[in-house]
Amino acid sequence: MRAQTRPQPPNSLNGLPSLAARLGHSFHQPALLRQALTHRSHSGINNERLEFLGDSVLNCVVASLLYQRFPKLPEGDLSRLRAHLVREATLCELAVVLDLGSQLLLGEGEMKSGGRRRPSVLADALEAIIGAIYLDGGFSAAEATVTRLYQDRLFDLDPGSLGKDPKTLLQEYLQGRRIALPQYTVLATAGDAHCQIFRVECSIPVLGISTQGEGSSRRAAEQLAAQAAYEVASRA
Amino acid sequence: MRAQTRPQPPNSLNGLPSLAARLGHSFHQPALLRQALTHRSHSGINNERLEFLGDSVLNCVVASLLYQRFPKLPEGDLSRLRAHLVREATLCELAVVLDLGSQLLLGEGEMKSGGRRRPSVLADALEAIIGAIYLDGGFSAAEATVTRLYQDRLFDLDPGSLGKDPKTLLQEYLQGRRIALPQYTVLATAGDAHCQIFRVECSIPVLGISTQGEGSSRRAAEQLAAQAAYEVASRA
Repeated sequence: MRAQTRPQPPNSLNGLPSLAARLGHSFHQPALLRQALTHRSHSGINNERLEFLGDSVLNCVVASLLYQRFPKLPEGDLSRLRAHLVREATLCELAVVLDLGSQLLLGEGEMKSGGRRRPSVLADALEAIIGAIYLDGGFSAAEATVTRLYQDRLFDLDPGSLGKDPKTLLQEYLQGRRIALPQYTVLATAGDAHCQIFRVECSIPVLGISTQGEGSSRRAAEQLAAQAAYEVASRA
Repeated sequence: MRAQTRPQPPNSLNGLPSLAARLGHSFHQPALLRQALTHRSHSGINNERLEFLGDSVLNCVVASLLYQRFPKLPEGDLSRLRAHLVREATLCELAVVLDLGSQLLLGEGEMKSGGRRRPSVLADALEAIIGAIYLDGGFSAAEATVTRLYQDRLFDLDPGSLGKDPKTLLQEYLQGRRIALPQYTVLATAGDAHCQIFRVECSIPVLGISTQGEGSSRRAAEQLAAQAAYEVASRA
Protein backbone atom coordinates (compact mmCIF):
# COMPACT_ATOMS: atom_id res chain seq x y z
CA MET A 1 0.00 0.00 0.00
CA ARG A 2 1.65 3.24 -1.12
CA ALA A 3 0.29 6.59 -0.09
CA GLN A 4 -1.86 8.24 -2.70
CA THR A 5 0.07 10.87 -4.61
CA ARG A 6 -2.23 11.74 -7.51
CA PRO A 7 -4.50 14.75 -6.97
CA GLN A 8 -7.88 13.70 -5.63
CA PRO A 9 -11.16 15.06 -6.95
CA PRO A 10 -13.18 16.79 -4.26
CA ASN A 11 -16.39 15.26 -2.98
CA SER A 12 -19.11 15.81 -5.53
CA LEU A 13 -22.38 14.13 -6.37
CA ASN A 14 -22.76 15.57 -9.88
CA GLY A 15 -22.48 12.11 -11.36
CA LEU A 16 -25.34 10.52 -9.39
CA PRO A 17 -27.86 10.43 -12.26
CA SER A 18 -25.40 8.70 -14.57
CA LEU A 19 -24.41 6.27 -11.83
CA ALA A 20 -28.10 5.44 -11.31
CA ALA A 21 -28.36 4.85 -15.05
CA ARG A 22 -25.38 2.49 -14.99
CA LEU A 23 -27.04 0.62 -12.13
CA GLY A 24 -30.26 0.43 -14.13
CA HIS A 25 -32.29 1.74 -11.22
CA SER A 26 -34.03 5.07 -10.99
CA PHE A 27 -34.20 6.04 -7.32
CA HIS A 28 -37.49 7.23 -5.85
CA GLN A 29 -35.44 8.28 -2.82
CA PRO A 30 -32.11 9.65 -4.13
CA ALA A 31 -31.04 10.26 -0.52
CA LEU A 32 -30.60 6.50 -0.19
CA LEU A 33 -28.06 6.44 -3.01
CA ARG A 34 -26.26 9.37 -1.47
CA GLN A 35 -26.12 7.58 1.89
CA ALA A 36 -24.83 4.41 0.20
CA LEU A 37 -21.92 6.44 -1.19
CA THR A 38 -21.09 8.06 2.16
CA HIS A 39 -18.09 6.60 3.94
CA ARG A 40 -18.01 6.71 7.74
CA SER A 41 -15.06 9.11 7.54
CA HIS A 42 -17.40 11.69 5.97
CA SER A 43 -20.48 11.60 8.17
CA GLY A 44 -22.24 9.88 11.04
CA ILE A 45 -25.04 9.13 8.59
CA ASN A 46 -23.08 6.77 6.40
CA ASN A 47 -23.33 3.54 4.48
CA GLU A 48 -22.50 1.01 7.19
CA ARG A 49 -26.03 -0.14 7.96
CA LEU A 50 -26.90 -0.21 4.27
CA GLU A 51 -23.81 -2.34 3.68
CA PHE A 52 -25.07 -4.86 6.27
CA LEU A 53 -28.39 -5.04 4.46
CA GLY A 54 -26.95 -5.05 0.95
CA ASP A 55 -24.45 -7.78 1.76
CA SER A 56 -27.31 -10.13 2.64
CA VAL A 57 -29.41 -9.11 -0.38
CA LEU A 58 -26.42 -9.68 -2.66
CA ASN A 59 -25.74 -13.09 -1.13
CA CYS A 60 -29.34 -14.06 -1.60
CA VAL A 61 -29.62 -12.95 -5.23
CA VAL A 62 -26.30 -14.55 -6.16
CA ALA A 63 -27.34 -17.79 -4.42
CA SER A 64 -30.57 -17.78 -6.40
CA LEU A 65 -28.80 -17.07 -9.70
CA LEU A 66 -26.32 -19.89 -9.09
CA TYR A 67 -29.08 -22.29 -8.02
CA GLN A 68 -30.83 -21.74 -11.33
CA ARG A 69 -27.73 -21.54 -13.52
CA PHE A 70 -26.32 -24.88 -12.24
CA PRO A 71 -29.27 -27.21 -11.58
CA LYS A 72 -27.11 -30.22 -10.74
CA LEU A 73 -24.27 -28.64 -8.76
CA PRO A 74 -23.90 -29.81 -5.13
CA GLU A 75 -24.35 -27.18 -2.44
CA GLY A 76 -20.66 -27.22 -1.52
CA ASP A 77 -19.73 -26.09 -5.02
CA LEU A 78 -22.53 -23.52 -5.04
CA SER A 79 -21.13 -22.08 -1.80
CA ARG A 80 -17.64 -21.92 -3.25
CA LEU A 81 -18.83 -20.15 -6.39
CA ARG A 82 -20.87 -17.70 -4.37
CA ALA A 83 -17.91 -16.91 -2.13
CA HIS A 84 -15.91 -16.15 -5.28
CA LEU A 85 -18.61 -13.87 -6.71
CA VAL A 86 -19.24 -11.83 -3.56
CA ARG A 87 -15.66 -11.51 -2.32
CA GLU A 88 -14.07 -8.11 -2.01
CA ALA A 89 -11.92 -8.46 -5.13
CA THR A 90 -14.91 -9.20 -7.36
CA LEU A 91 -17.03 -6.43 -5.83
CA CYS A 92 -14.14 -4.04 -6.30
CA GLU A 93 -13.87 -4.90 -9.99
CA LEU A 94 -17.60 -4.26 -10.43
CA ALA A 95 -17.29 -0.98 -8.52
CA VAL A 96 -14.48 0.15 -10.82
CA VAL A 97 -16.58 -0.58 -13.92
CA LEU A 98 -19.39 1.50 -12.36
CA ASP A 99 -16.86 4.24 -11.55
CA LEU A 100 -18.09 4.30 -7.96
CA GLY A 101 -14.83 5.77 -6.73
CA SER A 102 -15.44 9.20 -8.20
CA GLN A 103 -18.87 9.37 -6.52
CA LEU A 104 -17.81 8.44 -2.98
CA LEU A 105 -18.20 10.94 -0.17
CA LEU A 106 -15.08 10.58 1.96
CA GLY A 107 -13.52 12.40 4.86
CA GLU A 108 -10.43 14.40 4.01
CA GLY A 109 -7.96 11.94 5.52
CA GLU A 110 -9.55 8.98 3.80
CA MET A 111 -9.55 10.87 0.52
CA LYS A 112 -5.87 11.83 0.77
CA SER A 113 -4.82 8.30 1.63
CA GLY A 114 -6.39 6.92 -1.53
CA GLY A 115 -9.82 5.93 -0.21
CA ARG A 116 -11.43 6.32 -3.62
CA ARG A 117 -9.42 3.37 -4.88
CA ARG A 118 -9.30 1.26 -1.72
CA PRO A 119 -10.85 -2.14 -2.49
CA SER A 120 -12.62 -2.46 0.87
CA VAL A 121 -14.16 1.02 0.56
CA LEU A 122 -15.34 0.34 -2.98
CA ALA A 123 -16.71 -3.11 -2.17
CA ASP A 124 -18.56 -1.83 0.91
CA ALA A 125 -20.09 1.02 -1.09
CA LEU A 126 -21.32 -1.37 -3.78
CA GLU A 127 -22.96 -3.58 -1.16
CA ALA A 128 -24.54 -0.47 0.39
CA ILE A 129 -25.90 0.54 -3.02
CA ILE A 130 -27.54 -2.87 -3.38
CA GLY A 131 -29.09 -2.36 0.06
CA ALA A 132 -30.28 1.10 -1.00
CA ILE A 133 -31.91 -0.29 -4.16
CA TYR A 134 -33.60 -2.98 -2.05
CA LEU A 135 -35.08 -0.34 0.25
CA ASP A 136 -36.00 1.91 -2.65
CA GLY A 137 -37.51 -0.61 -5.05
CA GLY A 138 -37.88 -3.90 -3.21
CA PHE A 139 -36.24 -7.25 -3.73
CA SER A 140 -37.09 -7.44 -7.43
CA ALA A 141 -35.31 -4.14 -8.14
CA ALA A 142 -32.19 -5.28 -6.28
CA GLU A 143 -32.37 -8.63 -8.04
CA ALA A 144 -32.54 -6.92 -11.44
CA THR A 145 -29.47 -4.77 -10.71
CA VAL A 146 -27.42 -7.65 -9.31
CA THR A 147 -28.40 -9.87 -12.23
CA ARG A 148 -27.27 -7.21 -14.68
CA LEU A 149 -24.00 -6.59 -12.80
CA TYR A 150 -23.16 -10.30 -12.71
CA GLN A 151 -24.50 -11.32 -16.11
CA ASP A 152 -21.16 -11.82 -17.85
CA ARG A 153 -19.48 -13.37 -14.84
CA LEU A 154 -22.26 -15.92 -14.41
CA PHE A 155 -22.10 -16.81 -18.08
CA ASP A 156 -18.33 -17.31 -17.97
CA LEU A 157 -18.33 -19.24 -14.70
CA ASP A 158 -16.58 -22.61 -14.77
CA PRO A 159 -17.64 -24.58 -11.68
CA GLY A 160 -14.65 -26.87 -12.14
CA SER A 161 -12.01 -24.29 -11.42
CA LEU A 162 -13.48 -20.95 -10.39
CA GLY A 163 -13.29 -20.07 -6.77
CA LYS A 164 -10.50 -22.55 -6.11
CA ASP A 165 -7.27 -21.03 -4.96
CA PRO A 166 -4.14 -21.51 -7.10
CA LYS A 167 -2.49 -24.02 -4.72
CA THR A 168 -5.59 -26.23 -4.84
CA LEU A 169 -5.85 -25.91 -8.62
CA LEU A 170 -2.18 -26.79 -9.07
CA GLN A 171 -2.43 -29.73 -6.70
CA GLU A 172 -5.48 -31.13 -8.51
CA TYR A 173 -3.79 -30.64 -11.87
CA LEU A 174 -0.71 -32.57 -10.72
CA GLN A 175 -2.69 -35.33 -8.97
CA GLY A 176 -4.71 -35.85 -12.16
CA ARG A 177 -1.42 -36.55 -13.94
CA ARG A 178 0.09 -38.58 -11.07
CA ILE A 179 2.88 -36.04 -10.63
CA ALA A 180 4.43 -35.48 -7.19
CA LEU A 181 3.11 -32.40 -5.35
CA PRO A 182 5.06 -29.14 -5.58
CA GLN A 183 7.58 -28.05 -2.97
CA TYR A 184 7.23 -24.58 -1.47
CA THR A 185 10.36 -22.97 -0.03
CA VAL A 186 10.74 -19.57 1.60
CA LEU A 187 13.70 -17.99 -0.21
CA ALA A 188 13.80 -14.70 1.65
CA THR A 189 11.99 -12.42 4.02
CA ALA A 190 12.44 -8.66 4.19
CA GLY A 191 11.04 -5.71 6.08
CA ASP A 192 10.09 -5.05 9.68
CA ALA A 193 8.13 -7.52 11.75
CA HIS A 194 4.85 -5.63 11.21
CA CYS A 195 5.35 -5.29 7.48
CA GLN A 196 7.23 -8.31 6.22
CA ILE A 197 7.56 -9.45 2.63
CA PHE A 198 8.02 -13.16 1.91
CA ARG A 199 9.54 -14.56 -1.27
CA VAL A 200 8.58 -18.18 -1.88
CA GLU A 201 9.60 -20.64 -4.56
CA CYS A 202 7.24 -23.26 -5.97
CA SER A 203 9.17 -26.11 -7.52
CA ILE A 204 7.96 -29.10 -9.57
CA PRO A 205 11.25 -30.84 -10.50
CA VAL A 206 9.77 -33.49 -12.78
CA LEU A 207 8.29 -30.75 -15.00
CA GLY A 208 11.35 -28.55 -14.69
CA ILE A 209 9.19 -25.79 -13.24
CA SER A 210 10.40 -23.30 -10.67
CA THR A 211 8.40 -20.14 -10.04
CA GLN A 212 8.41 -17.47 -7.38
CA GLY A 213 5.88 -15.32 -5.60
CA GLU A 214 6.09 -12.42 -3.18
CA GLY A 215 3.53 -11.44 -0.59
CA SER A 216 2.91 -10.04 2.86
CA SER A 217 2.41 -13.54 4.25
CA ARG A 218 3.97 -16.86 3.51
CA ARG A 219 0.57 -18.15 2.39
CA ALA A 220 0.01 -15.26 0.01
CA ALA A 221 3.47 -15.69 -1.51
CA GLU A 222 2.85 -19.43 -1.95
CA GLN A 223 -0.42 -18.76 -3.75
CA LEU A 224 1.27 -16.37 -6.18
CA ALA A 225 4.08 -18.84 -6.83
CA ALA A 226 1.49 -21.62 -7.34
CA GLN A 227 -0.47 -19.42 -9.73
CA ALA A 228 2.63 -18.87 -11.86
CA ALA A 229 3.49 -22.56 -11.78
CA TYR A 230 -0.05 -23.55 -12.74
CA GLU A 231 0.03 -21.22 -15.70
CA VAL A 232 3.34 -22.65 -16.90
CA ALA A 233 2.26 -26.28 -16.33
CA SER A 234 -1.17 -25.97 -17.96
CA ARG A 235 0.29 -24.14 -20.99
CA ALA A 236 2.93 -26.81 -21.55
CA MET B 1 -25.55 -37.73 22.69
CA ARG B 2 -27.25 -40.98 23.70
CA ALA B 3 -28.47 -43.45 21.13
CA GLN B 4 -32.12 -43.11 20.33
CA THR B 5 -34.15 -45.72 22.23
CA ARG B 6 -37.74 -44.58 21.77
CA PRO B 7 -39.59 -46.17 18.82
CA GLN B 8 -39.38 -44.01 15.72
CA PRO B 9 -42.36 -43.29 13.48
CA PRO B 10 -41.84 -44.54 9.93
CA ASN B 11 -41.35 -42.08 7.09
CA SER B 12 -44.71 -40.59 6.17
CA LEU B 13 -45.87 -37.44 4.46
CA ASN B 14 -49.47 -37.53 5.69
CA GLY B 15 -48.92 -34.34 7.65
CA LEU B 16 -47.72 -32.18 4.74
CA PRO B 17 -50.93 -30.18 4.32
CA SER B 18 -51.02 -29.25 8.00
CA LEU B 19 -47.31 -28.38 7.92
CA ALA B 20 -47.96 -26.11 4.95
CA ALA B 21 -50.76 -24.50 6.95
CA ARG B 22 -48.44 -23.91 9.93
CA LEU B 23 -45.95 -22.32 7.53
CA GLY B 24 -48.71 -20.14 6.13
CA HIS B 25 -47.80 -21.05 2.57
CA SER B 26 -49.86 -23.11 0.17
CA PHE B 27 -47.47 -24.82 -2.22
CA HIS B 28 -48.15 -24.68 -5.96
CA GLN B 29 -45.44 -27.32 -6.27
CA PRO B 30 -45.79 -29.68 -3.28
CA ALA B 31 -42.82 -31.66 -4.58
CA LEU B 32 -40.62 -28.78 -3.41
CA LEU B 33 -41.83 -29.16 0.17
CA ARG B 34 -41.28 -32.91 -0.03
CA GLN B 35 -37.73 -32.33 -1.28
CA ALA B 36 -37.08 -29.83 1.51
CA LEU B 37 -37.98 -32.51 4.04
CA THR B 38 -35.77 -35.16 2.43
CA HIS B 39 -32.50 -35.80 4.22
CA ARG B 40 -29.52 -36.95 2.18
CA SER B 41 -29.64 -40.30 4.00
CA HIS B 42 -33.00 -40.97 2.32
CA SER B 43 -32.43 -40.05 -1.30
CA GLY B 44 -30.04 -38.56 -3.83
CA ILE B 45 -32.73 -35.96 -4.51
CA ASN B 46 -32.59 -34.30 -1.12
CA ASN B 47 -32.70 -30.93 0.58
CA GLU B 48 -29.04 -29.91 0.44
CA ARG B 49 -29.27 -27.50 -2.48
CA LEU B 50 -32.51 -26.04 -1.13
CA GLU B 51 -30.76 -25.53 2.20
CA PHE B 52 -28.03 -23.50 0.46
CA LEU B 53 -30.68 -21.32 -1.14
CA GLY B 54 -32.89 -21.06 1.95
CA ASP B 55 -30.00 -20.13 4.20
CA SER B 56 -29.32 -17.05 2.10
CA VAL B 57 -33.00 -16.13 1.80
CA LEU B 58 -33.38 -16.44 5.57
CA ASN B 59 -30.30 -14.30 6.19
CA CYS B 60 -31.63 -11.65 3.84
CA VAL B 61 -35.14 -11.50 5.32
CA VAL B 62 -33.83 -11.44 8.90
CA ALA B 63 -31.35 -8.70 7.98
CA SER B 64 -34.17 -6.67 6.50
CA LEU B 65 -36.44 -7.22 9.52
CA LEU B 66 -33.66 -6.15 11.91
CA TYR B 67 -32.76 -3.14 9.77
CA GLN B 68 -36.34 -1.89 10.05
CA ARG B 69 -36.92 -2.93 13.67
CA PHE B 70 -33.81 -1.12 14.96
CA PRO B 71 -33.36 2.07 12.89
CA LYS B 72 -30.42 3.34 14.95
CA LEU B 73 -28.49 0.17 15.69
CA PRO B 74 -24.92 0.01 14.29
CA GLU B 75 -24.22 -2.72 11.75
CA GLY B 76 -22.01 -4.65 14.18
CA ASP B 77 -24.95 -5.10 16.55
CA LEU B 78 -27.26 -5.95 13.66
CA SER B 79 -24.82 -8.68 12.61
CA ARG B 80 -24.69 -10.08 16.12
CA LEU B 81 -28.46 -10.16 16.44
CA ARG B 82 -28.82 -11.80 13.06
CA ALA B 83 -26.25 -14.46 13.96
CA HIS B 84 -28.31 -15.18 17.06
CA LEU B 85 -31.56 -15.47 15.12
CA VAL B 86 -30.28 -17.74 12.35
CA ARG B 87 -28.03 -20.00 14.41
CA GLU B 88 -28.76 -23.70 14.58
CA ALA B 89 -30.22 -23.60 18.10
CA THR B 90 -32.82 -20.97 17.15
CA LEU B 91 -33.73 -22.72 13.90
CA CYS B 92 -34.08 -25.97 15.80
CA GLU B 93 -36.51 -24.38 18.27
CA LEU B 94 -38.61 -23.06 15.39
CA ALA B 95 -38.51 -26.47 13.72
CA VAL B 96 -39.76 -28.13 16.91
CA VAL B 97 -42.69 -25.71 17.13
CA LEU B 98 -43.53 -26.57 13.49
CA ASP B 99 -43.19 -30.27 14.33
CA LEU B 100 -40.86 -30.70 11.35
CA GLY B 101 -39.29 -33.79 12.89
CA SER B 102 -42.30 -36.01 12.29
CA GLN B 103 -42.38 -35.01 8.62
CA LEU B 104 -38.72 -35.65 7.76
CA LEU B 105 -37.82 -38.31 5.24
CA LEU B 106 -34.75 -40.04 6.65
CA GLY B 107 -32.69 -43.09 5.81
CA GLU B 108 -33.07 -45.99 8.21
CA GLY B 109 -29.76 -45.49 9.99
CA GLU B 110 -30.37 -41.78 10.45
CA MET B 111 -33.86 -42.50 11.75
CA LYS B 112 -32.67 -45.11 14.27
CA SER B 113 -29.93 -42.84 15.58
CA GLY B 114 -32.42 -40.10 16.42
CA GLY B 115 -32.23 -38.00 13.26
CA ARG B 116 -35.75 -36.67 13.74
CA ARG B 117 -34.57 -34.80 16.82
CA ARG B 118 -31.04 -33.92 15.73
CA PRO B 119 -30.66 -30.11 15.82
CA SER B 120 -28.55 -29.92 12.66
CA VAL B 121 -31.01 -32.05 10.68
CA LEU B 122 -33.97 -29.97 11.87
CA ALA B 123 -32.25 -26.64 11.25
CA ASP B 124 -31.15 -27.68 7.76
CA ALA B 125 -34.66 -28.83 6.88
CA LEU B 126 -36.16 -25.53 8.01
CA GLU B 127 -33.68 -23.59 5.86
CA ALA B 128 -34.53 -25.89 2.94
CA ILE B 129 -38.24 -25.20 3.46
CA ILE B 130 -37.56 -21.47 3.26
CA GLY B 131 -35.68 -22.10 0.01
CA ALA B 132 -38.61 -24.15 -1.28
CA ILE B 133 -41.09 -21.39 -0.47
CA TYR B 134 -38.83 -18.88 -2.23
CA LEU B 135 -38.82 -21.05 -5.38
CA ASP B 136 -42.54 -21.72 -5.13
CA GLY B 137 -43.85 -18.27 -4.34
CA GLY B 138 -41.01 -15.80 -4.77
CA PHE B 139 -39.21 -13.61 -2.28
CA SER B 140 -42.39 -12.08 -0.87
CA ALA B 141 -43.79 -15.50 0.05
CA ALA B 142 -40.56 -16.48 1.80
CA GLU B 143 -40.47 -13.10 3.52
CA ALA B 144 -44.03 -13.58 4.80
CA THR B 145 -43.24 -17.00 6.25
CA VAL B 146 -39.97 -15.92 7.88
CA THR B 147 -41.64 -12.81 9.29
CA ARG B 148 -44.40 -14.95 10.83
CA LEU B 149 -41.91 -17.47 12.23
CA TYR B 150 -39.78 -14.75 13.84
CA GLN B 151 -42.51 -12.36 14.91
CA ASP B 152 -42.34 -13.04 18.65
CA ARG B 153 -38.58 -13.31 18.74
CA LEU B 154 -38.13 -9.99 16.98
CA PHE B 155 -40.54 -8.34 19.36
CA ASP B 156 -38.75 -9.71 22.42
CA LEU B 157 -35.27 -8.94 21.15
CA ASP B 158 -33.04 -6.92 23.46
CA PRO B 159 -30.09 -5.58 21.44
CA GLY B 160 -28.20 -4.94 24.67
CA SER B 161 -27.80 -8.55 25.67
CA LEU B 162 -29.16 -10.93 23.08
CA GLY B 163 -26.68 -12.73 20.96
CA LYS B 164 -23.90 -12.23 23.49
CA ASP B 165 -22.58 -15.41 25.02
CA PRO B 166 -22.84 -15.85 28.82
CA LYS B 167 -19.10 -15.33 29.45
CA THR B 168 -19.22 -11.99 27.64
CA LEU B 169 -22.40 -10.95 29.43
CA LEU B 170 -20.94 -11.86 32.81
CA GLN B 171 -17.68 -10.05 32.04
CA GLU B 172 -19.50 -6.89 30.98
CA TYR B 173 -21.70 -7.04 34.06
CA LEU B 174 -18.68 -7.30 36.36
CA GLN B 175 -16.65 -4.65 34.53
CA GLY B 176 -19.60 -2.25 34.81
CA ARG B 177 -19.35 -2.71 38.59
CA ARG B 178 -15.55 -2.68 38.74
CA ILE B 179 -15.46 -6.21 40.07
CA ALA B 180 -12.54 -8.51 39.24
CA LEU B 181 -13.19 -10.98 36.39
CA PRO B 182 -14.33 -14.50 37.25
CA GLN B 183 -11.94 -17.42 37.54
CA TYR B 184 -12.70 -20.56 35.55
CA THR B 185 -11.27 -23.84 36.83
CA VAL B 186 -11.61 -27.32 35.35
CA LEU B 187 -12.72 -29.47 38.30
CA ALA B 188 -12.95 -32.81 36.52
CA THR B 189 -12.97 -34.55 33.18
CA ALA B 190 -14.61 -37.88 32.50
CA GLY B 191 -15.19 -40.21 29.58
CA ASP B 192 -13.08 -41.41 26.67
CA ALA B 193 -10.93 -39.09 24.62
CA HIS B 194 -13.52 -38.87 21.81
CA CYS B 195 -16.43 -38.23 24.16
CA GLN B 196 -15.14 -36.27 27.14
CA ILE B 197 -17.21 -34.38 29.66
CA PHE B 198 -15.68 -31.34 31.38
CA ARG B 199 -16.84 -29.94 34.71
CA VAL B 200 -15.81 -26.32 35.19
CA GLU B 201 -16.24 -23.96 38.13
CA CYS B 202 -16.86 -20.24 37.71
CA SER B 203 -15.87 -18.36 40.80
CA ILE B 204 -16.36 -14.69 41.75
CA PRO B 205 -14.97 -14.56 45.31
CA VAL B 206 -15.94 -10.96 46.06
CA LEU B 207 -19.59 -11.79 45.41
CA GLY B 208 -19.35 -15.16 47.13
CA ILE B 209 -20.45 -16.83 43.89
CA SER B 210 -19.30 -20.25 42.80
CA THR B 211 -21.18 -22.07 40.06
CA GLN B 212 -20.48 -25.09 37.92
CA GLY B 213 -21.18 -26.19 34.37
CA GLU B 214 -20.69 -29.43 32.46
CA GLY B 215 -20.17 -29.81 28.74
CA SER B 216 -18.45 -31.74 26.00
CA SER B 217 -15.74 -29.09 25.72
CA ARG B 218 -14.04 -26.88 28.23
CA ARG B 219 -15.48 -23.85 26.50
CA ALA B 220 -19.04 -25.20 26.60
CA ALA B 221 -18.69 -26.02 30.29
CA GLU B 222 -17.34 -22.52 31.01
CA GLN B 223 -20.29 -20.94 29.23
CA LEU B 224 -22.78 -22.94 31.30
CA ALA B 225 -20.97 -22.06 34.52
CA ALA B 226 -20.89 -18.38 33.46
CA GLN B 227 -24.59 -18.49 32.64
CA ALA B 228 -25.38 -19.78 36.14
CA ALA B 229 -23.08 -17.18 37.74
CA TYR B 230 -24.63 -14.37 35.69
CA GLU B 231 -28.11 -15.40 36.80
CA VAL B 232 -27.05 -15.44 40.46
CA ALA B 233 -25.16 -12.12 40.22
CA SER B 234 -27.83 -10.21 38.31
CA ARG B 235 -30.58 -11.47 40.64
CA ALA B 236 -28.67 -10.37 43.75
